[in-house]
Amino acid sequence: MSTDKSYHMTPEQFRQYGRAVVDWIADYYERIETLPVLSQVQPGEIRRALPPEPPRKGEAFETMLKDIDEVILPGVTHWQSPNFFAYFPANASGPAILGDLLSSALGVQGMLWATSPSCTELETHVLDWLVPMLGLPQKFLSTRSGGGVIQDTASSSSLCAMLAARERATNYASNRRGCDGRLVAYTSNQAHSSLEKAAMVAGIGIDNLRLIEVDERFAMRSDVLARQIQNDRQAGLIPFFVSATVGTTSSNALDPLRAIGAICREEGLWFHVDAAMSGTAALCPEFRFIQDGVELADSYTFNPHKWMFTNFDCNCFFVAKRKALIDTLSILPEYLRNTATESGAVFDYRDWHIPLGRRFRSLKLWFVIRYYGVEGLQYHIRQHVEMARQFAEWVKQDDRFELAAPVPLNLACFRLRGGDESNQRLMDRLNQSGALYLTHTRLDDHLTLRFCVGQTNTTQRHVEQAWRGIQEEAGKL
Amino acid sequence: MSTDKSYHMTPEQFRQYGRAVVDWIADYYERIETLPVLSQVQPGEIRRALPPEPPRKGEAFETMLKDIDEVILPGVTHWQSPNFFAYFPANASGPAILGDLLSSALGVQGMLWATSPSCTELETHVLDWLVPMLGLPQKFLSTRSGGGVIQDTASSSSLCAMLAARERATNYASNRRGCDGRLVAYTSNQAHSSLEKAAMVAGIGIDNLRLIEVDERFAMRSDVLARQIQNDRQAGLIPFFVSATVGTTSSNALDPLRAIGAICREEGLWFHVDAAMSGTAALCPEFRFIQDGVELADSYTFNPHKWMFTNFDCNCFFVAKRKALIDTLSILPEYLRNTATESGAVFDYRDWHIPLGRRFRSLKLWFVIRYYGVEGLQYHIRQHVEMARQFAEWVKQDDRFELAAPVPLNLACFRLRGGDESNQRLMDRLNQSGALYLTHTRLDDHLTLRFCVGQTNTTQRHVEQAWRGIQEEAGKL
Repeated sequence: MSTDKSYHMTPEQFRQYGRAVVDWIADYYERIETLPVLSQVQPGEIRRALPPEPPRKGEAFETMLKDIDEVILPGVTHWQSPNFFAYFPANASGPAILGDLLSSALGVQGMLWATSPSCTELETHVLDWLVPMLGLPQKFLSTRSGGGVIQDTASSSSLCAMLAARERATNYASNRRGCDGRLVAYTSNQAHSSLEKAAMVAGIGIDNLRLIEVDERFAMRSDVLARQIQNDRQAGLIPFFVSATVGTTSSNALDPLRAIGAICREEGLWFHVDAAMSGTAALCPEFRFIQDGVELADSYTFNPHKWMFTNFDCNCFFVAKRKALIDTLSILPEYLRNTATESGAVFDYRDWHIPLGRRFRSLKLWFVIRYYGVEGLQYHIRQHVEMARQFAEWVKQDDRFELAAPVPLNLACFRLRGGDESNQRLMDRLNQSGALYLTHTRLDDHLTLRFCVGQTNTTQRHVEQAWRGIQEEAGKL
Repeated sequence: MSTDKSYHMTPEQFRQYGRAVVDWIADYYERIETLPVLSQVQPGEIRRALPPEPPRKGEAFETMLKDIDEVILPGVTHWQSPNFFAYFPANASGPAILGDLLSSALGVQGMLWATSPSCTELETHVLDWLVPMLGLPQKFLSTRSGGGVIQDTASSSSLCAMLAARERATNYASNRRGCDGRLVAYTSNQAHSSLEKAAMVAGIGIDNLRLIEVDERFAMRSDVLARQIQNDRQAGLIPFFVSATVGTTSSNALDPLRAIGAICREEGLWFHVDAAMSGTAALCPEFRFIQDGVELADSYTFNPHKWMFTNFDCNCFFVAKRKALIDTLSILPEYLRNTATESGAVFDYRDWHIPLGRRFRSLKLWFVIRYYGVEGLQYHIRQHVEMARQFAEWVKQDDRFELAAPVPLNLACFRLRGGDESNQRLMDRLNQSGALYLTHTRLDDHLTLRFCVGQTNTTQRHVEQAWRGIQEEAGKL
């Protein structure tokens, strides 16, 4: 047997092609504003540009990189464009991208402490840093009873919170014998769809997820929550879990954590807080009003991969009692046994989420926090909030428009006075122009446009330009 | 308001630091054999090297890169070392790392077709390529009733298979009203622990997951499976799901897919096939015996991030009827509605797994397939199998050792004749030497060492060197 022949890329080739890719990326960011933000292709167009059969022989790296421009880019919606105001930001940054590159290259599996101690310990450490950075309660520290873990998305970590709550409520009987259809969970009717998905996945059932009504600011009504819990108890059901939102997807509404938390304490329910996008704002002390009462939470989740300059995926999930989470998700087969695990002196993060394998994601988060420093992060978050509020002021000053919800942070919900159809038309025209991208929701049963500021390179010029574009298109309707 | 000030890394800085990171990586791969494969640090050692407080001010990128060497590397277990023979491979390669770098930089969210058509269409297309590449049934093609999706891990996709099976068995009543504790799932007692975790997460309960006994080759006994299904039906329970393994984690055992599939057809059970590591071998026609009967499967999963040179995470999950999966996991809130979705002409991959957000992971897989070509991939897989079989021959020829299981592919299970304690000592000494890393399992209640060949740069020299090291240490015991 000869193993001399090799199709692998050598380190020298990697040096050469790696530089080409780095340059491609720098060029991409330099020209990104010349590209239409929302991809203009039709369904099937990208696939038709791809060969039907996989290549028999290897191809040159240069060809592949050329295809990024020619085949892939037309079908890319540019989430990293400073003119991206849709959905939520998924902002990336240089230090994050390079931290992630190191993670790809080291290629370690962090499933156990022993399979790469740095992967576990850096993650625990950086998530401990975030506790004071965000003004979160000390019980979320790994040095106390809690701790943090990086997951892929808030969908997954909210599911884990629900599972830990389910097991706490049933004394681990659900893990052993399965669910019995009597557990009831609560969130607001403005909560993210991932809560419904979690209720389905976890065997709770969406009929057993109560979508509590909201007040005029789209925040959960704690009085309705309290009443619903009583009704469910009287019906012989078992209330077990409440998820409150800090900054809903539709309108950035802020559920009253303190009131909800008090009810959860009183009733013995697990209290989860989903701050997916807006949690980042708490880097600035003046915005911590959004999480008043978070010290009552059993678990908390937010996404540095939304608004904290850390490319996807990087969700941070904190629990007050890590034992509850670990006891819910732990399985220890023989082939994963090792001295460090059995000593009890280490965390094995595979027991903190659903997947077994895991990437070294804390590297990029560590790089972001160090490169910007807390001051740099605060500066840019303040800028984003100021720009969104400025945008809201402009909306208020133009009689053709109205604001549809309060603007506590970086999201302005607004609409043309004149009905759903004209708003739909306005949005479609703006998005088809390629100059900017924004998306919609429904509030009070009206189609409402969402203008969300948070892309890394968005500056006042982009927001001004967007508002001018919106005004102009509105004038043409 | 002024937005002139900025803490962001400029494209020019990115060019400079990006090149430094690329060089660091090339250097790392050039010197990787000089580093101890298994990290030698003690619990807490890495954390103690990190400052307790997050930095107030931003730091220089150079400092951060230096800390990779000084702080992080001592705590890294080198999964990319050619002397890594532990667990399973998690092999990376140049084209994968650079494809992933482009994904980080584009930073698109592929949750919906509309949020980046290329992200969806390239993924569908490359997964369609894999169907003939691996000799899988045509029904897994997106152009038929099925289709493939990239998930993070086989743990997650096996969970999704179980959920789709659960809903098919209960006509979506579990999603609505929750589980009722009567569903029963089946796998072998050698199956991966993720099946137990899935049964807990999905509200089935581990008491309702039957771990079917295996034959002398550690493969599931289909006669026992058939009998157990009958017993459960007679007890008033509802059998709904079987997961068979192609290449178990412990010993690479091959469950008899054809016999199991026939039972599933007969009984109306969902048939899932978990080929996490070994599926890659099917790139070579001569190894397709491992999946004889896979055409009977409802779903199939394997990990290019294990043995196909694609850095983590990249799990491929195929279903025969995508409608069953989508109907199980779909939720459509207003803020995600769009014309393309409502036309029905596109896939929205958020409905194919648990998270909403998703990374552009097909780029790296596309790069790997194109850079190596099918021939290049086949060549290296054949080499790995040949090396493992050669190793097994050497074990057989040394009277002090015995093989503990058949060696169908790239994993050799062996032990010293002489009891658990000497095998444990042998393994600990080898791993502490830093020269190589291997792990253990238990087979027939004996501690057994696993020698798994699959790291990208492993060549015959590394395997010979490992075997010499094993022989020498054994001689010293």
